[in-house]
Amino acid sequence: MQLISEALERTIEELAKLPGMGRKSAQRIAMHLLKKDEGSVLKLAETLVHLKQSTTTCSVCHIVTDRDPCPICGNPKRNTGIVCVVEDIKDVYAIERTNEFKGRYHVLGGVISPMESIGPDQIRIKELVQRVGSGEIEELILALNPDAEGEATSFYIQKLVRPFEIKITRIAQGIPLGSELEFVDEATLSRAFEGRSVV
Amino acid sequence: MQLISEALERTIEELAKLPGMGRKSAQRIAMHLLKKDEGSVLKLAETLVHLKQSTTTCSVCHIVTDRDPCPICGNPKRNTGIVCVVEDIKDVYAIERTNEFKGRYHVLGGVISPMESIGPDQIRIKELVQRVGSGEIEELILALNPDAEGEATSFYIQKLVRPFEIKITRIAQGIPLGSELEFVDEATLSRAFEGRSVV
Repeated sequence: MQLISEALERTIEELAKLPGMGRKSAQRIAMHLLKKDEGSVLKLAETLVHLKQSTTTCSVCHIVTDRDPCPICGNPKRNTGIVCVVEDIKDVYAIERTNEFKGRYHVLGGVISPMESIGPDQIRIKELVQRVGSGEIEELILALNPDAEGEATSFYIQKLVRPFEIKITRIAQGIPLGSELEFVDEATLSRAFEGRSVV
Repeated sequence: MQLISEALERTIEELAKLPGMGRKSAQRIAMHLLKKDEGSVLKLAETLVHLKQSTTTCSVCHIVTDRDPCPICGNPKRNTGIVCVVEDIKDVYAIERTNEFKGRYHVLGGVISPMESIGPDQIRIKELVQRVGSGEIEELILALNPDAEGEATSFYIQKLVRPFEIKITRIAQGIPLGSELEFVDEATLSRAFEGRSVV
């Protein structure tokens, strides 16, 4: 294939490195940008640079934010006694969208995974134990993904935090809303039976 | 939902404007960029700016390229007598990947579409007729998409170019390689019968 434009080729290559993006989608976006006016492409480029240069990590919950402490940790209306432990910032976004949780977060930045050689020291478990040790926390809600790594990490945290005698809870596992029983996998269904509640 | 980071939110919004990108994929990419070092994000941003600033349109075939004439029109090894008419630059990329076609291109920049109020004057049909009129072209290969707009545009071009008495061809329509007859749609299958050739 004859190289038609080096600039276009380089853009496609760079875009194809992004997650969830194949060469075809990268090409589609590059062609789209070619058709846009220079102003809006500059705006996109500036936004990306700004993202890296103006964000920091909250020293309390380790979320990525514009200021430290983050708007959640700095919000006096939020309950400082309840802390929700999540794997990633994405999960904070997902939980915030429910408008249900009014406590604070602790972003681990990963889960324990021997397969990817991530041990307890590579994620923010030490910082979590310190927060619990400071005495301000009454309830720790474990909200890690319900997979093998998430379960193992939850278990490990429980073991470390148990001595502080605070309430430790986990978000419910069961059948998702709007699903049909016949299509729910066996593991989820049996977990839903285990976790049944009196009505 | 509480705003956690304005910079992150703006990045997600800008990325979500790109084609084929929903809020979820935009968020995923933004989170990915947050984790990358500043250098590689800067590189991506610079590539995008460079794309707009260093590309131009080939004055012969109207492809987007780094120089005018483009590497295809400027390549003395390519047959100047055969011109393939395509809707978009994407199609040039697709055809070049086959390494089959050794002529030149004419990028229309769209197809006639009354639904989107695109008439013959909004696309580069006038320029195509001028190229044909210059007398250098022996064969015009119509390679527009086989949909209603593509068919109508092909028909319109045929009508305009007919007086110049050059060879006008169309790329074959039929069953795609590797497909199974039972899953090929009726329209394609009947086109394949119409276009059958003696072996």
